Amino acid sequence: MPRAPRVGHLVFTRPLADDSPVRHAVILAGGSGTRLWPASRRARPKQFLALGAGESLLAAAVRRGAHAAGQVMVVTAASQATLAAVEAPGSTILVEPIGRNTAAAIGLAAIHLLARDPDAVLGVLPADQHIGDEPGWYAAVATAFAAAERADVICTIGIAPTRAETGFGYLELGAPTAQAGVTEVARFVEKPDATTAAAYLAGGRHLWNGGMFFCRARRIVDDLARLVPAIGLALAQIADALAHDVAGAAALTAALYPALPAISIDHGVMEKTPGVVTVRGDFGWDDVGSWAAVPAITGADARGNTALGDGVVVDGTGNVVMADPGRTVVVVGCSDLVVVQSGDAVLVVPRARAQDVRLAVDELTRRGLERFL
Amino acid sequence: MPRAPRVGHLVFTRPLADDSPVRHAVILAGGSGTRLWPASRRARPKQFLALGAGESLLAAAVRRGAHAAGQVMVVTAASQATLAAVEAPGSTILVEPIGRNTAAAIGLAAIHLLARDPDAVLGVLPADQHIGDEPGWYAAVATAFAAAERADVICTIGIAPTRAETGFGYLELGAPTAQAGVTEVARFVEKPDATTAAAYLAGGRHLWNGGMFFCRARRIVDDLARLVPAIGLALAQIADALAHDVAGAAALTAALYPALPAISIDHGVMEKTPGVVTVRGDFGWDDVGSWAAVPAITGADARGNTALGDGVVVDGTGNVVMADPGRTVVVVGCSDLVVVQSGDAVLVVPRARAQDVRLAVDELTRRGLERFL
Repeated sequence: MPRAPRVGHLVFTRPLADDSPVRHAVILAGGSGTRLWPASRRARPKQFLALGAGESLLAAAVRRGAHAAGQVMVVTAASQATLAAVEAPGSTILVEPIGRNTAAAIGLAAIHLLARDPDAVLGVLPADQHIGDEPGWYAAVATAFAAAERADVICTIGIAPTRAETGFGYLELGAPTAQAGVTEVARFVEKPDATTAAAYLAGGRHLWNGGMFFCRARRIVDDLARLVPAIGLALAQIADALAHDVAGAAALTAALYPALPAISIDHGVMEKTPGVVTVRGDFGWDDVGSWAAVPAITGADARGNTALGDGVVVDGTGNVVMADPGRTVVVVGCSDLVVVQSGDAVLVVPRARAQDVRLAVDELTRRGLERFL
Repeated sequence: MPRAPRVGHLVFTRPLADDSPVRHAVILAGGSGTRLWPASRRARPKQFLALGAGESLLAAAVRRGAHAAGQVMVVTAASQATLAAVEAPGSTILVEPIGRNTAAAIGLAAIHLLARDPDAVLGVLPADQHIGDEPGWYAAVATAFAAAERADVICTIGIAPTRAETGFGYLELGAPTAQAGVTEVARFVEKPDATTAAAYLAGGRHLWNGGMFFCRARRIVDDLARLVPAIGLALAQIADALAHDVAGAAALTAALYPALPAISIDHGVMEKTPGVVTVRGDFGWDDVGSWAAVPAITGADARGNTALGDGVVVDGTGNVVMADPGRTVVVVGCSDLVVVQSGDAVLVVPRARAQDVRLAVDELTRRGLERFL
């Protein structure tokens, strides 16, 4: 007799069968995506945007995850659960009571997987990434899953850097391992300054930390218990409840979750735990972090302008111009601007200041115009 | 028995009584206003825009005209007649079969006035002007009407220049006349270069040509007959028809009008005819010719930013930002830009290049996106 699907904070869009595969893609889709305002809104954050592609970032992540792992779990916020269910058909939607950063989210996902499958191996995958070469990505993911199944390691995918990027963390490579293509990680490095980033790019010993990692679910739960005890303790209580009282587990999660430390998995676990290894990835990866990243993803014309929808540039170069279907944005005589029309809002910001979209969000909040957020 | 209203190309929203006053305001409202795209559209040109005021430019012109002259005639295109009738209640709407510049439009208006009132005095008033000091404007207009009633002159209103403007034509002052406040115009001067404009501003002998003038209707018809015979001949035929066959006059207008020379009243008549005088006007006048003119009309904040609607500027100066009601435009880290959201379109252009909006219009046309014009 198959186990009944468990519900509570969990919305199972597809019950797991007893013979479910060991590999699980855990897609983190709880972000707010403020830096992609006005396309990204509170009610429809960036992972639900297509950004010129035929599918949303989340739909693409789910599609790739299902292909690579068989089972997909999407961790998201209650306000996004319906949208996520639409974008991730056939996936388990795990709803967090409140966002508490990645350590808690991954831990919660891990104990839910363990409740069903003590041998579960998970791959954590952010929802807001661009993958240019999907076969290359599948190969790297398969190697990483295999590494996690063979040994008690956490296997990351380190992205071969293509520029001296100061906006990402880096992995410093250590010794090779017995498995082909898998290398020890000597240490995690915080976002570097420009000089250091250039040295990393030239040296070949550093890879971008793309936020993807693979391990047994038990391993990450044990690491959290040891390294972030406040989270580990709460997870242990919730896991205990999950084993015999699903409704109670939901209530317990709602009660305990808000008090959990909002710490990232990198700071909480990855930088401190032994046995972290990496697979080098070179598959046209990019973080879709701000409007400045869009040209790398969608390409630009001969004058360096990137237009999504009926965006038109006259006498200008290096602009990113986006208009909803049925609308137009025309830029005359300007260069290196981001101009985005989405719904009821328009943003204009220099491309070099794309991170400062948060200032727009702050100012709208200050003026009581939060209806546009 | 009152005369029946005449119809045809004329849409009389209010029949003229036999004792109609002699003074008529003739408001020219046939322009396309391309340089105020995207607020100004083919179906709703700039004279129908409020631009931050509580009434459209045309409604304001009609209100002032009715106060100054008693009778108002609005000359416009068929495509704008309904909008004009809404904005100009109580006015006569005179529809041109096609736009043929101001000489033809004013001549057509004049013969229609003469058909009803051989002694009609008219004041020609563009629909797209901003008047900051309306009592000052009324005083100047009253003086100009009085000058036109006393003598066979064409009395302009010359605007006291407030900057070395190179975008306007100028009137060079001549000798005083017998009427206080009325001066002969020595000559009309084309748009000057910057050096010349600065000399005009310093010299005090030149006024801006604001396109307002006052004369007997008979005078301008006679001048057109003498100086632009192709127009004069057509007007004579139409006037003859108007006297006995209104429907025939309408058909004749439709037949003759397209072949008329598209010449401005300035080039066709004012620069050549004797007896042109002027009243000096200093009443916060500005031509609403492009987005660059908007701050002078609506004012700017302490950082030089002009926002209409929920336009927001963060960390920038000297911007003109406009959003429709219920929409927002946020500009972060940019200065001296015009950013206008109107309906389904957004324009971004440096303020110093506001004239280049025509390039946007050209490019949309080239791309087959005329639906946005």
